Amino acid sequence: MPRFQARVLVQLRPSVLDPAGEAASAAAQRLGVDGIAHLRIGKAVELELEAPDEAEARRRVELLSDRLLANPVIENWTLELSQS
Amino acid sequence: MPRFQARVLVQLRPSVLDPAGEAASAAAQRLGVDGIAHLRIGKAVELELEAPDEAEARRRVELLSDRLLANPVIENWTLELSQS
Repeated sequence: MPRFQARVLVQLRPSVLDPAGEAASAAAQRLGVDGIAHLRIGKAVELELEAPDEAEARRRVELLSDRLLANPVIENWTLELSQS
Repeated sequence: MPRFQARVLVQLRPSVLDPAGEAASAAAQRLGVDGIAHLRIGKAVELELEAPDEAEARRRVELLSDRLLANPVIENWTLELSQS
């Protein structure tokens, strides 16, 4: 059975406040790191998956992302899939 | 001043237990998504940065990653930098 590598990046929707990102931005300035804008903190989920083909692998990870990894009300997600 | 896009991916070191990842794996099976292995959950930090050149932009984000975004004792990080 072919094996796939998937990376799902889950980010808060742009309209949603990101307190963690704002706290990190403030801390960056205290560290003396200038010029930072729009710092957003999200989730990076990496996984391996055995599936008959790429379409089936994509279908499974999309189901996982919609139902488990991301909260569709406040988050968007993107999927990077490659065969290992 | 040139503008850069940075993405810092922070992952737990392979030797460190990932309870959130394990919980997500178990939930994936309950959802009926089979074939998943090595599911790891980390952080994805996206930011924009104004800096005189790419080397300075890289230096600043590396400092930020080492001192603020990742805990070097239990986490590794990787940096993707591009000029916008």
